[in-house]
Amino acid sequence: MVHLRDDEKLEDLQYKGYKIIQKKHGFRFGMDAVLVSYYARLNIFPGEYVLDLGTGSGIIAILLAAKTNAAKITGLEVQEDMAEMAARSVVINSLQDRVDIICGDMRNSRNIFQGGTFNHVVTNPPYKKAGSGLVNSSDSMALAKHEILCSLDDVIGNAAYVLKNNGFFTMVHRPERLNDIVILMRKYKIEPKFMRFVHPSAGKAPNLILVRGVKGGKPFLKIEEPLYIFNNDGTYTEEVKRIYN
Amino acid sequence: MVHLRDDEKLEDLQYKGYKIIQKKHGFRFGMDAVLVSYYARLNIFPGEYVLDLGTGSGIIAILLAAKTNAAKITGLEVQEDMAEMAARSVVINSLQDRVDIICGDMRNSRNIFQGGTFNHVVTNPPYKKAGSGLVNSSDSMALAKHEILCSLDDVIGNAAYVLKNNGFFTMVHRPERLNDIVILMRKYKIEPKFMRFVHPSAGKAPNLILVRGVKGGKPFLKIEEPLYIFNNDGTYTEEVKRIYN
Repeated sequence: MVHLRDDEKLEDLQYKGYKIIQKKHGFRFGMDAVLVSYYARLNIFPGEYVLDLGTGSGIIAILLAAKTNAAKITGLEVQEDMAEMAARSVVINSLQDRVDIICGDMRNSRNIFQGGTFNHVVTNPPYKKAGSGLVNSSDSMALAKHEILCSLDDVIGNAAYVLKNNGFFTMVHRPERLNDIVILMRKYKIEPKFMRFVHPSAGKAPNLILVRGVKGGKPFLKIEEPLYIFNNDGTYTEEVKRIYN
Repeated sequence: MVHLRDDEKLEDLQYKGYKIIQKKHGFRFGMDAVLVSYYARLNIFPGEYVLDLGTGSGIIAILLAAKTNAAKITGLEVQEDMAEMAARSVVINSLQDRVDIICGDMRNSRNIFQGGTFNHVVTNPPYKKAGSGLVNSSDSMALAKHEILCSLDDVIGNAAYVLKNNGFFTMVHRPERLNDIVILMRKYKIEPKFMRFVHPSAGKAPNLILVRGVKGGKPFLKIEEPLYIFNNDGTYTEEVKRIYN
């Protein structure tokens, strides 16, 4: 039996009985994590090795284990209590043979992983620059949302280090950081090849961007069809329903 | 009376009697030119100095003269016959006191203009890399479409040279070049601040991108509402009708 702490809650992922432990009051996974795991799994093939940088509750690692035939998904998380909680979610889902949760600092990835060993790196990193807005650096919510423990440069630089040549990098982020994303991916030789903007609904400005790059890839970018979350009547679009199922 | 050559045609711009001379069989201005002049004029203020890099038929310079209170719009065009034709379109519209057409090579802008003198640079540059697809370099259509006489680096670098600090740079281009656009704008210290993707209709991938940067601007990008050309029933959207009027 897996133990739940008083401040934790077990949630049903509404997919083949998979479950996840979340903090009752801390950072909770959102649609971003579901969308980026969807966008990543389009390019995760049977037998591959996948790394989720900053796995938090382990949601992306568990969704990818549930929905792909990857050989192994490794989730790296710097916060000890989150890593320990993610590891219990792995056990709850009996995914121990395919999901490894490692507690460690991605900025230190050279001491944790061999370079060039993963087929795919996926990440839902903090969106906000350190210092933007009030933050309490001891707060797991702040650590998940702000670049306190890792900058975007750290995320992309360490993804590039662990990726095989021609391996994929998939990230969700805010559109306002698009310039920084492109500059840093080029800096670390992960060419942005596909982008999808996520809009609340048709006609609205996008509020998320999904980016997929290829390490050592040649320059040619495809901006794909927009992804709309809601229909005009406020119901979820057919595509979002498909992504959740 | 302004003379029309046998291979030329006078077209009515459907706006307050303005007209433009176009080649019957060469490169003809498209919706791109109309969209970029719309996007530029949102940030062109009374009394300002504007440069259209690679003005071709002069369409953007003439639309901006017609629809803004800029003091002077300068159109730079490398092809002699095009520059001469654009200059005749300026005369037809009696815009000689507000529109200057200069025949010259933008790569040589340091010898044509003083640095830091324009409030706004607008451009509808060639979209395709030199060498992509079959081109005949003596063909004015090829010169307008391919980076034969100027690369994207030339366009952005020379725009940066002529722009005042805090001046605006507005460009239309293809989404597939977004990475290059961002990298080169940052290289020349024109920060991309606003982007609008242009989609044939809602739900379709974008086929044009409108970018507006600020020379010396601070990093913060706003990706604006998408611009749709057609409604689902194939008619022009209300916004496109407004842009044309």
